[in-house]
Amino acid sequence: MTSDKVRSIRILDTTLRDGEQTPGVSLTAEDKIEIAQQLSKLGVDIIEAGFPSSSEGERKIVKEIAKQGLTSKICALSRCTKKDIDAALECDVDIIHVFIPTSPVQMKYAVNMTPQQVLDSAVESIQYVKKHGVACEFSPMDATRTEKPFLKEICLAAQDAGMDSLNTPDTVGCMIPRTTYEFFKELKSYIKVPLSAHCHNDFGLAVANSLAAVEAGADQVHTAINGLGERAGNAALEEVVTTLHVVYGYKTNINTRLLYSTSRMVSSLSGVSVQVNKAIVGENAFAHESGIHTRGVTEQPLTFEPISPELVGRTRKLVAGKLAGTRGIQAELNEIGIHPTDAQLADIVKRVKELGDKGKMVTDADLIAITSAVMGQVVGEEKIVDLCDMAVVTGIKVIPTASVRLMLDGKEYVAAETGVGPVDAVLKAITKLTSNLKQIRLSEYRLEAITGGSNAVAEVVIKVEDENGRIVSARAAREDIVMASVEAMINGINKLLLKNSKQGNTK
Amino acid sequence: MTSDKVRSIRILDTTLRDGEQTPGVSLTAEDKIEIAQQLSKLGVDIIEAGFPSSSEGERKIVKEIAKQGLTSKICALSRCTKKDIDAALECDVDIIHVFIPTSPVQMKYAVNMTPQQVLDSAVESIQYVKKHGVACEFSPMDATRTEKPFLKEICLAAQDAGMDSLNTPDTVGCMIPRTTYEFFKELKSYIKVPLSAHCHNDFGLAVANSLAAVEAGADQVHTAINGLGERAGNAALEEVVTTLHVVYGYKTNINTRLLYSTSRMVSSLSGVSVQVNKAIVGENAFAHESGIHTRGVTEQPLTFEPISPELVGRTRKLVAGKLAGTRGIQAELNEIGIHPTDAQLADIVKRVKELGDKGKMVTDADLIAITSAVMGQVVGEEKIVDLCDMAVVTGIKVIPTASVRLMLDGKEYVAAETGVGPVDAVLKAITKLTSNLKQIRLSEYRLEAITGGSNAVAEVVIKVEDENGRIVSARAAREDIVMASVEAMINGINKLLLKNSKQGNTK
Repeated sequence: MTSDKVRSIRILDTTLRDGEQTPGVSLTAEDKIEIAQQLSKLGVDIIEAGFPSSSEGERKIVKEIAKQGLTSKICALSRCTKKDIDAALECDVDIIHVFIPTSPVQMKYAVNMTPQQVLDSAVESIQYVKKHGVACEFSPMDATRTEKPFLKEICLAAQDAGMDSLNTPDTVGCMIPRTTYEFFKELKSYIKVPLSAHCHNDFGLAVANSLAAVEAGADQVHTAINGLGERAGNAALEEVVTTLHVVYGYKTNINTRLLYSTSRMVSSLSGVSVQVNKAIVGENAFAHESGIHTRGVTEQPLTFEPISPELVGRTRKLVAGKLAGTRGIQAELNEIGIHPTDAQLADIVKRVKELGDKGKMVTDADLIAITSAVMGQVVGEEKIVDLCDMAVVTGIKVIPTASVRLMLDGKEYVAAETGVGPVDAVLKAITKLTSNLKQIRLSEYRLEAITGGSNAVAEVVIKVEDENGRIVSARAAREDIVMASVEAMINGINKLLLKNSKQGNTK
Repeated sequence: MTSDKVRSIRILDTTLRDGEQTPGVSLTAEDKIEIAQQLSKLGVDIIEAGFPSSSEGERKIVKEIAKQGLTSKICALSRCTKKDIDAALECDVDIIHVFIPTSPVQMKYAVNMTPQQVLDSAVESIQYVKKHGVACEFSPMDATRTEKPFLKEICLAAQDAGMDSLNTPDTVGCMIPRTTYEFFKELKSYIKVPLSAHCHNDFGLAVANSLAAVEAGADQVHTAINGLGERAGNAALEEVVTTLHVVYGYKTNINTRLLYSTSRMVSSLSGVSVQVNKAIVGENAFAHESGIHTRGVTEQPLTFEPISPELVGRTRKLVAGKLAGTRGIQAELNEIGIHPTDAQLADIVKRVKELGDKGKMVTDADLIAITSAVMGQVVGEEKIVDLCDMAVVTGIKVIPTASVRLMLDGKEYVAAETGVGPVDAVLKAITKLTSNLKQIRLSEYRLEAITGGSNAVAEVVIKVEDENGRIVSARAAREDIVMASVEAMINGINKLLLKNSKQGNTK
């Protein structure tokens, strides 16, 4: 299907190396192997797996990843020293990525070497890697702040020494797309091996600069999932790749449908959450609230979406709120099988807007409560699980314990459970009781970040799944984290049971 | 000081309008007024305060903001209808921003109008606004997907009708910097009034596209704090402005030193947290973990920082972790008054790396624990507050209650408190007891987002402040949210008391 004329860009993903240098992030060997397997499935050409000389543990992990037999090639980072390169060689990787600072400020303060010493080290290191029959990528670190004559001198020397590709890091992210384009055009005029961009995001331009490098002829881009990396991070793989495919019409080996699940996995294992308004993978990237927008996308998605959410493994989300229009709220209600009349719908919309004007976020529970009130007993009647009593304790030398009394389809059940914390204990107790009706599993628990005082509102979003793999999400917001978690869980279970019975009843 | 030759760019901030359209965000009247006051202090030229016709509450808020007598001009959004414009006029704003869809897909599906009807509505609306003596900005919505001949026709007609500025929204964010540059160059060739860019971030390019528009001659940029807005949001004010100042050498009226505090305020009031690796305002934007980086920045900050953190109202942060170097950990310990010998330091670094290899994030408490172990009793002795016993209950019809027994400087104290939730109750009890020693206030409580199961590790970061305004932050990570909060609080209080006594003892 794809013509040979379509330009193809190579992706070197450094989530496991520069991404792991994200302050506060630390991955276990198991985490790194799991991510490497996912990156390979995603179609990353080269995985930069780590920096073997940084610790004994890191060396073992890189070695283990190289042994997995993944489709992706495996690369290890190394300074221009024999000790570092030996550590990388020991890991049996396909590519060794050697780097050395070349800008005046870094040569002086980061390594305290003269330009000649830097050049000699680079050449010797590349020759040493090549002598062992391993491919070598060379990075003059801080290339974009390096004096142009010295950059040309060291890159040409590296080429003569046998480097297989040249990567020019914009180490402190000080480039803009126009200067990046000119920078790569110049490199292209005298370097024959493939060129690679490694952009940092200090001014929010890592993705744009990576694309400008490709426009100027770069063959490869360094990326990280969710834009992880030192300080403000690296170019986000999901943004670079989606733009290359959709806007430029270029190809990569990435299967874009796995972008969202990969982002979620890395977010969960790294503990670095993704901003809701992050492009492509943020919770809101395909969510619509304002009336003009929700009306547009329900008629024709292209009105307010540049790409189909499915292309990146996602689905559209319509959100009720004070700016929400009638159509958005209707679509949300229809989704859970509720079909108000036009008059009822108008009343629901009015009440949602009033709640929004008070500064309240309109949660699923709020929408259901409003709808129940407007439509009489219709919605309320369908509440299959109802919480009657609950108590939770935790403390020092106290095993976090919860007791719960639930009404399940009119019958009363009681259970107690322990857990690693109060939330875990109470959700386990609820799940245990619900199993009397149906096997339901908590497939995801998310607590949005809280900033403010200890009395700030906690927002919990959960996903629950039944035996048939049906998943629904539900949210709740309360000042008490435990109660917010319980309310979200009960909402989710009700939605799932409701959905099941609705789906059973309709053609 | 600034020469007249320096180009000056106008900032229209739409945090309160497009930013509030962020799905899930809803601000009270008080929130919006507080943000408007901060935006004015920050130096925003024009504040887009809201969309008066969307609800009665919204109209009141916009009116109230216009009455504040802020330095910033106030702008209101309006569709091209008399009803909408009347609602905006009623608010007494300086500028009315009228918009209408002009792309084929939006004319057909979002408003169901012919191009001629769209053009007529636009012209009539602009004339109607101008007749009332109010400035008018016109936006052909989805301008970047509008057919070129029609775009020219409607923009020229709008100019003839008296628009004061032309804003061309890239409504679905499908532009790249190169095409944005060409787009604005062309507009510039036939439009005489000031041009404005309104870029969306669907491919992560909102900031880069805004800068490209400025390069091509745009006079104004639409921004939002933290990049809030529909879907993936708008161009982040902090990124656009810092790049214009630092990289381009242009000026704006923004006081960049207020960028961080403004970002924190908007994050807290909107409930939308900022990703740690977000440029300029993310928690990690000026944080360094890897040894090469921490050694560099302690010698000379420019090695690994493009700008001084103080320029945007921040400070540098060095983080201990498995990739951390000796210098970074030493700097962190020195900061809290601990000075290990070289041999002790080497041992501490080794243990930190071992902990990191196990995939553990190295928290402040971990670093202190390791340091205590290595240095003998030195650090341990300085623990002024120690938690002995604690119990917390919450539930339905249970007022969240906590009891705490603490050792304060060798004496035992007990107290109980209630709160809005278990965390609030226990932190109140601890604060109450600590006041026996010193008045200490919890100035910020932050719980990082949790994704995973209900047994995922919760990370709590708190800031505590003493009577003299000294602030320290502390963190803790546990599976039990309540225990993590307590541990962070106790760590913070100890750090603060330690810091006080250290500062008292040294010259």
